[in-house]
Amino acid sequence: MCVNMDLMATTLPLLDTAVAKCCAEPGSAPLDRDEADAVARLLKAVADPVRLQIISIVRCSEGGEVCACDLPSPLGLAQPTVSHHLKVLVDAGLLERERRGQWAWFSLVPERLELARRALGT
Amino acid sequence: MCVNMDLMATTLPLLDTAVAKCCAEPGSAPLDRDEADAVARLLKAVADPVRLQIISIVRCSEGGEVCACDLPSPLGLAQPTVSHHLKVLVDAGLLERERRGQWAWFSLVPERLELARRALGT
Repeated sequence: MCVNMDLMATTLPLLDTAVAKCCAEPGSAPLDRDEADAVARLLKAVADPVRLQIISIVRCSEGGEVCACDLPSPLGLAQPTVSHHLKVLVDAGLLERERRGQWAWFSLVPERLELARRALGT
Repeated sequence: MCVNMDLMATTLPLLDTAVAKCCAEPGSAPLDRDEADAVARLLKAVADPVRLQIISIVRCSEGGEVCACDLPSPLGLAQPTVSHHLKVLVDAGLLERERRGQWAWFSLVPERLELARRALGT
């Protein structure tokens, strides 16, 4: 978990700069490779059908949060596979995880989704 | 080329429905797997550093279009590699290609980028 936090702390300023440049006007400097790498890492986390379904299930849930135990059935996948995809989304900062007793609950991080959206321009 | 056009014609209505569902309110039905597949295909086309750089270079160009011949140098890649990435973007409907003499010129398809953005929610 420390490794992921470190990674996020290191890449976050770069990602912010990169996303700002994605929305740049004609005549401004395009993304360099490091900036494009940072944006691609964020977009790759969502560019997967199972992870898009997870984001959609959380968004459509009445309380805005979903228990990990309620995901295998609608996704038609085993718990370890679901856990892998949840980890990718948490590592990318797109989902927040809260442990309650035996299970973890997940909610969206809207600012982070907004960052991914802005990376595609305005 | 015909195959790609057929593919786009087949998946486009599904993609439109899917993107609308991505922005759904709490309580509505989440994405099913086919819809998530369609959205993931579109997002995968942009979730790559080189393709993000290409989109950024076209967006930042003064005329809103770039000649394929002007891309290898800023990307630091050989023409065949650049051509592969251009093809992925054209196949996904994100770039439009116009042949002029020896070279192809590329411009963005803003509606298609907007579709990718809406797939990440509102």
